[in-house]
Amino acid sequence: MKNTFGNSLSVTLFGESHGEMIGAVIDGISPGISVDEAYIAHRLTLRRPAGKISTARAESDPFRIVSGIFEGKTTGTPLTILIPNENTNSKDYAATRPLARPGHADYTAFCKYHGYEDYRGGGHFSGRITAALVAAGAILQAALEEKGIRIATHISRLGKINDRSFGEYASDIEKLNSTVFAVLDDAVAPAMTRAAEDAASEGDSIGGILETAVIGVPAGVGEPWFDSMESTLSHALFSIPAVKGVEFGCGFSFADMKGSEANDPFQTENGTITTKTNNNGGINGGITNGMPILFRTAVKPTPSIYKEQKTVNFIENKEAILAIHGRHDPAIVHRARAVQDAVTAIALADALLLRFGTDWLKKE
Amino acid sequence: MKNTFGNSLSVTLFGESHGEMIGAVIDGISPGISVDEAYIAHRLTLRRPAGKISTARAESDPFRIVSGIFEGKTTGTPLTILIPNENTNSKDYAATRPLARPGHADYTAFCKYHGYEDYRGGGHFSGRITAALVAAGAILQAALEEKGIRIATHISRLGKINDRSFGEYASDIEKLNSTVFAVLDDAVAPAMTRAAEDAASEGDSIGGILETAVIGVPAGVGEPWFDSMESTLSHALFSIPAVKGVEFGCGFSFADMKGSEANDPFQTENGTITTKTNNNGGINGGITNGMPILFRTAVKPTPSIYKEQKTVNFIENKEAILAIHGRHDPAIVHRARAVQDAVTAIALADALLLRFGTDWLKKE
Amino acid sequence: MKNTFGNSLSVTLFGESHGEMIGAVIDGISPGISVDEAYIAHRLTLRRPAGKISTARAESDPFRIVSGIFEGKTTGTPLTILIPNENTNSKDYAATRPLARPGHADYTAFCKYHGYEDYRGGGHFSGRITAALVAAGAILQAALEEKGIRIATHISRLGKINDRSFGEYASDIEKLNSTVFAVLDDAVAPAMTRAAEDAASEGDSIGGILETAVIGVPAGVGEPWFDSMESTLSHALFSIPAVKGVEFGCGFSFADMKGSEANDPFQTENGTITTKTNNNGGINGGITNGMPILFRTAVKPTPSIYKEQKTVNFIENKEAILAIHGRHDPAIVHRARAVQDAVTAIALADALLLRFGTDWLKKE
Amino acid sequence: MKNTFGNSLSVTLFGESHGEMIGAVIDGISPGISVDEAYIAHRLTLRRPAGKISTARAESDPFRIVSGIFEGKTTGTPLTILIPNENTNSKDYAATRPLARPGHADYTAFCKYHGYEDYRGGGHFSGRITAALVAAGAILQAALEEKGIRIATHISRLGKINDRSFGEYASDIEKLNSTVFAVLDDAVAPAMTRAAEDAASEGDSIGGILETAVIGVPAGVGEPWFDSMESTLSHALFSIPAVKGVEFGCGFSFADMKGSEANDPFQTENGTITTKTNNNGGINGGITNGMPILFRTAVKPTPSIYKEQKTVNFIENKEAILAIHGRHDPAIVHRARAVQDAVTAIALADALLLRFGTDWLKKE
Repeated sequence: MKNTFGNSLSVTLFGESHGEMIGAVIDGISPGISVDEAYIAHRLTLRRPAGKISTARAESDPFRIVSGIFEGKTTGTPLTILIPNENTNSKDYAATRPLARPGHADYTAFCKYHGYEDYRGGGHFSGRITAALVAAGAILQAALEEKGIRIATHISRLGKINDRSFGEYASDIEKLNSTVFAVLDDAVAPAMTRAAEDAASEGDSIGGILETAVIGVPAGVGEPWFDSMESTLSHALFSIPAVKGVEFGCGFSFADMKGSEANDPFQTENGTITTKTNNNGGINGGITNGMPILFRTAVKPTPSIYKEQKTVNFIENKEAILAIHGRHDPAIVHRARAVQDAVTAIALADALLLRFGTDWLKKE
Repeated sequence: MKNTFGNSLSVTLFGESHGEMIGAVIDGISPGISVDEAYIAHRLTLRRPAGKISTARAESDPFRIVSGIFEGKTTGTPLTILIPNENTNSKDYAATRPLARPGHADYTAFCKYHGYEDYRGGGHFSGRITAALVAAGAILQAALEEKGIRIATHISRLGKINDRSFGEYASDIEKLNSTVFAVLDDAVAPAMTRAAEDAASEGDSIGGILETAVIGVPAGVGEPWFDSMESTLSHALFSIPAVKGVEFGCGFSFADMKGSEANDPFQTENGTITTKTNNNGGINGGITNGMPILFRTAVKPTPSIYKEQKTVNFIENKEAILAIHGRHDPAIVHRARAVQDAVTAIALADALLLRFGTDWLKKE
Repeated sequence: MKNTFGNSLSVTLFGESHGEMIGAVIDGISPGISVDEAYIAHRLTLRRPAGKISTARAESDPFRIVSGIFEGKTTGTPLTILIPNENTNSKDYAATRPLARPGHADYTAFCKYHGYEDYRGGGHFSGRITAALVAAGAILQAALEEKGIRIATHISRLGKINDRSFGEYASDIEKLNSTVFAVLDDAVAPAMTRAAEDAASEGDSIGGILETAVIGVPAGVGEPWFDSMESTLSHALFSIPAVKGVEFGCGFSFADMKGSEANDPFQTENGTITTKTNNNGGINGGITNGMPILFRTAVKPTPSIYKEQKTVNFIENKEAILAIHGRHDPAIVHRARAVQDAVTAIALADALLLRFGTDWLKKE
Repeated sequence: MKNTFGNSLSVTLFGESHGEMIGAVIDGISPGISVDEAYIAHRLTLRRPAGKISTARAESDPFRIVSGIFEGKTTGTPLTILIPNENTNSKDYAATRPLARPGHADYTAFCKYHGYEDYRGGGHFSGRITAALVAAGAILQAALEEKGIRIATHISRLGKINDRSFGEYASDIEKLNSTVFAVLDDAVAPAMTRAAEDAASEGDSIGGILETAVIGVPAGVGEPWFDSMESTLSHALFSIPAVKGVEFGCGFSFADMKGSEANDPFQTENGTITTKTNNNGGINGGITNGMPILFRTAVKPTPSIYKEQKTVNFIENKEAILAIHGRHDPAIVHRARAVQDAVTAIALADALLLRFGTDWLKKE
C-alpha cells in the first residue's frame, strides 16, 4: 500500500528531502521490546555519508521517537520516529525544476502528481527518506537479534572489484555491523574507494552489488504462492531507490547450471536438517528452510552526476542541457547497505509475526 | 496476502497437483470486458508441455468459467476459473513421501504445515497450479491489449545460448505471442532445444533467463515507496516457482556502469517525451516513464531430475538416497514464459486500476 | 477487499444466483483441522429455506471441497468449496430486468457495473451466495469450537415479538445450534412464524433482530484503533444482505444510560477477572475482555414482495409499476442467523490468527 | 490494519494521551488539493472541549503539517500532521495504574500488551487521539466538498432529548458545520446541556446518539460483498471510542417494518433517478444509490465518572474501589460529532478513490 509496507507489522514512511522532517511509523510491533537509541544512532551512522565518496551534506540525524515507547520499551501501539531535516538548501534546485534529471523520478513524479510534487532535492523520492527507513529498521533489527536472527549486508562489488562472499556467517555478520565501509575482505576497500573517487573526479558515479545474509530464521516461514519469502523480500528491496535487481542464492547464475548442480542436497547435522550447499539462498518453494537467507541487489550508479546531460524541460516540452550542481555521492552502494538491512528486517518481522503471532518479537 | 495478489484488482489461487481441480478467482475486474475462451486456451497452450523437452503428462486444461461472466462479458464481480485435474497418478509419489526432493518445497512445506500438506506431486506447490494463473492472466492480457498494452516474454538464455533482445517491440511482441517456443531469433531455437534434450538424456535439467517487454503503459503508474512498479512486479514474478532473480532494465549490469552510461537521456519525439536509451527498463523512481517496461527473470533448473540425489527422510530425520521417477521436464523456461506474461498482466492491471479507477480496463 | 475478507485468514466469495455455481476460498487456515462434511451440511440446513415462511426454491446445497483438504484434514493451503446452482429458472427475471426492485441492488449494481451485471435473481447480490459463506464459516466454527470458542445466534425479535436474551450461555448456544428456528424461548416461535405467514398472505414481508453470543474468546484480541473487534465484526456483519444495523452490548440503549449504569464493574471470580454486568458486550476499547461477546443486528424486511410497487425502468429512465413473481421469503431473519454465525466465525478466526499466529486454530 | 485505515487512500494514526505528540499520516491523497489550515483548526474547534459540560483540559491543538504539502497544496505523497501534547499531568494517573477503570481499555490493553502499554490517561486509547483523526479528516472533508460531497453530524439524542432529523439537507449540513453544539433544532440545546450538567453534578455521565448525513456521493460506489458501503463506514465508525452501535437508514426500526413500508420506491425527478423515501439511507446492496447517505451511531456514556466504582487491581488480581479524579467530560457526544464527520470523510475518500482512481479528489 503505497507508503505502508507489511500487514501483521507495518511501516509507514513519510517526508521529503527539503520538508520540515521525515519519519516512519511502525505499527504492530510486539510490546516489551527494549529500544536502544544508541543502536538506532549507530545504524544511522552506517547509512550516513562519510568521507570523500559521499555527499557533503552533513546529516546528523537527530531522531526523536514521539510515540509507542514507554519506560524504554515498545508499548505495542504505533511507534513514530521523526527526523528533522536540517541543512537544506532549496535554492540549489529551483532553477532546474523543469529539467528532468535522467535516471531520477523528476519526470515520472511530474506525470503522476501533475506538477504538485515537491521537486526540491527529489522531494519524497530523495534518498534522504531512507534515514527514516534505517531508523525504523534498526528497532526491528535489534528485536530480531534478541530472537537469534541476525542480518548483515556487504558491498559485494563496486568499481568492478569483488569482495569475498560470506564464510563464517556469525562472525562475518558481526564484523559488518560494526564496519562503516562494509566489506568482508578489508583488502578490497581501498580499490573500491579509489574507483568511487575516480568517478567523482570525472563528475561521474558508479554502481555496485550488495549481498545480504540473514541467519537464525526458523524453517517454515513464508506464505506462498503470492507472499513467498522471495516475493516479500524483493517487494521491500525494490523500494530502495537505485535497486534494479534482486537475486536469491545463485540467482542469475542458475541460468547456466544443471539441476544436479543447483539442487541443494539435504543432510542431517547433529539431528538438524540442513542443506549441504545453499544455492537456493535458504528458501525452497517460497518458504524458509532454516539455512542462511542469502540475496544480492544490483544498485545502479547514482543518477546525479556533474557531467552535462541531455534532457528535456518537461514543462515546456522541449529538449535541454542539464548541469547538476549541489551535493551528490559518486556511489551510494556503501550507504545503501544500511537501508538494505533495514528493509530486510521490516519484511522478515512482518512475515514472522504473521506466522507466529503479534507477541513473537517480545523476548521471552 | 498468501494466495491472493492485488488490491484494486486481485487474483486468488487455489488447488493442488493431484486434487480435484485447480482454479483462480479474479476480483475487481472492470465490467464489460469481452472474454474470449479461445484466447485463454491459446495462452494455456503456450504454457503446456510440448515436445521431447517437456513432461509426458498430457494437460488438455479444459477450463470452465463458473462465475463473473454474463453474455460473454465480465460482470465486474468475481470471475472464477476452474481447471479439473486429469491424468493424475498419485501412486508415483506415495513411496517417496518422506524424502525431501532437493530444490523443492517438500521439506519447507512440511515445516510450515506440520505434515498435513498434500504432498502428492508437490501439492499446492506444483507448477501445475500455474495453469490457473495463466488462465486468469489471459483474461487480463486480452483486456490490456484492448487498452493498447501488450506483453510478451522470450527465452533470453537457455543452455548457455542467448536469444537476441527486443528490437521492434510491437512486431517482436506479436511474433512471440504466436510462437510456442518463444525466441526472437529462430536460429537459436534448435541449439536451445538440443541443450535441454542433452540434459534430459543425462537425467538432468537446465535453467535459463526469461525477458519480458511491456509496451503501452502510460507514464505515471506505480506507487512508491513501497509499491514501486519494480516492487509490485517482482512480488508477482517471485511467486513463479523456480524464479530466483528479477532485474529491470540493465539490472545487474548496472553494477559495472557509470552514471553517465546508465542514465537515460530524455528527448522529445514528435512532441512526446521519451528516453534515448532504456537502461532503466521504463521505470524511474518506481513510476513508469512511458517507455517499454523491460525485465528479466532467472529461472533455476527444474529441481526434479532423474539422477540419484542425496537427501533426508524428514519424518525419520535421517539421510537417504532419492531416485525420482514420474514425468518431469528437463527445462521449464520455455513454459514459464506464459506464466511470466500472466503475472505481469495481473500486477499491471492492479496498478492501473488503482491509478485510474475500477472501470479503466473496460474499453471505451 | 471487495470479495475477500480478512488478512491472516481470508475468505474469498464468488458466484451468482443463476450462474453455474457459487463458492468460497478460505486461505490461511491452520493445517491439521478436521473437516466434517456432515457439520457443514448441518449448517447449510440451518440456513436453508424451510416451511411455509421460506422460499419454495429447493436448495439441497450439495457442496464439494475441491482443494485444501488431504486425508480429511486442512492442509493449510487454500480450501475451496463449490456449491452448484440447481433449480434455477432464469426466465422469471428477464422480463423485469430494467425495473429496479425497491430495496434491492438492481439499480445500484447497474450504476456500478454499467449494465454488464448478471441481473438474474439478483446475480452476485443474491442471498443465494450466503450458502457459500455458511459453508466456509462452518469449517471455521468447528475449528473454533475445538479451541473452546462457541458461537450462536437467535431471533431476538420478529413480527414485534421478542425472544428472551441469553441466560446460561453454554447451554443456550448448544440449544440454538441444533434448532432450525432459532429462538431461546420455544414459546415465542409460533407467534413469530404466524407473523411471517400473515405477511406472506398479504404479499408482504417482515424484518427482525438477530442476537449473537460468542463465548471462549480470550481477553486481549482486537487491533485498535482501526481494527477494533467491533470494527472487524461489523465489517463482516454488514456484508450480510439486509443487515442495516449492528450494536454491541447495550448498543443503542447506551444512549439513555448513565455512566454509572453503563460501566461494567470488574470483579474476580475464582481468580479470574470478569465483569459483573456485560453491557459492553465483551469488548472494551476495541479489545476483548474475556466476557461473552454479544451483538445484535437489524435485519430489514425481505425487499422482494408480491405487492405491486412503484419503481423506475432504469434503462429507459422512466417510472413504472413492478409486480414481482417467483419465489420469495416473507422473512429471512430465521435463515440469516446461520449467515451471521458464519461471518462471525470468519472475522474472529482472522483476528485470532493475527494475534496468535497461523497455526493457532490447529488443535494442540 | 491496526492503526492504518483504507487502501486507495489510507490514514495511519499514532500517539498517546501523555506522549510527546499525536498525529496522522494520510497516504494516497490526490495531488493538487488546497489545504486550508484555518479549516482544520475550525474542525478541531468543533471537537474541542468547551463549556461546563466538557473537560477542563485546555487543548489548543496547534497542529503542524510536516510533509505532503508544497506551496499550499497536497503533493500526493504522504501528508503528516503532528499535534503536540500540552498540559498533560501524568501524576493524575500513576496512583491508579493497576485499577481497571470500568468501561475503559485499561484491563484489555493490559491483556493485549502485557503491561507494557502507556497507561497514562488511557495512552493510545485516549479520546485525545481523535484530534489527529479530526485534523486528517478535515483535509479530506474540504476536498470532498470541492467535489460536491458534504458531510455533517448532529446530536440526534442526548439526555433522552431528541433533536429533529435532517430536513433540507444542504442547509442543515451548512448550519451544523458552523455550530459548536450540533443540533438542528436550537430549542433542544438547553435541555441537552442541562442533562449533561445534571449528570456532571452527580459525578456521572450520559450517552447519546449521533446522526450523520452525506450528500453528493454519486451512485455506484461501494465494493460488495465485503466492502459494502455499510461495511467500510461501520468499520471506520466503530473505531471511534464509545461508539457501540451503527445503523443505516431506518436501522433497528426496520425490525418492526413490513417490506412494503421499508422499500424505497424509485422515481424520476427531472430525469434523475431517486427514491421517494430514504429508508435505506442511500445504500442498496452495499452500493450507493445517489440519495443522501444517512446513519446513526450509539455513543455510550463517558466511562470516566467521579462516582466510586467497584473494580479490580489487575496486577494484584484482587477487587478494589476506584475513585477517578482528573478532568472528564459528563458527555462526549457533542464532541464526537467532529470525529464522526472525520472518519466518514476518510472512509468515503478511500471508497471514491478506489472507484474513480487516485486523482479523483483533485478538483478539475
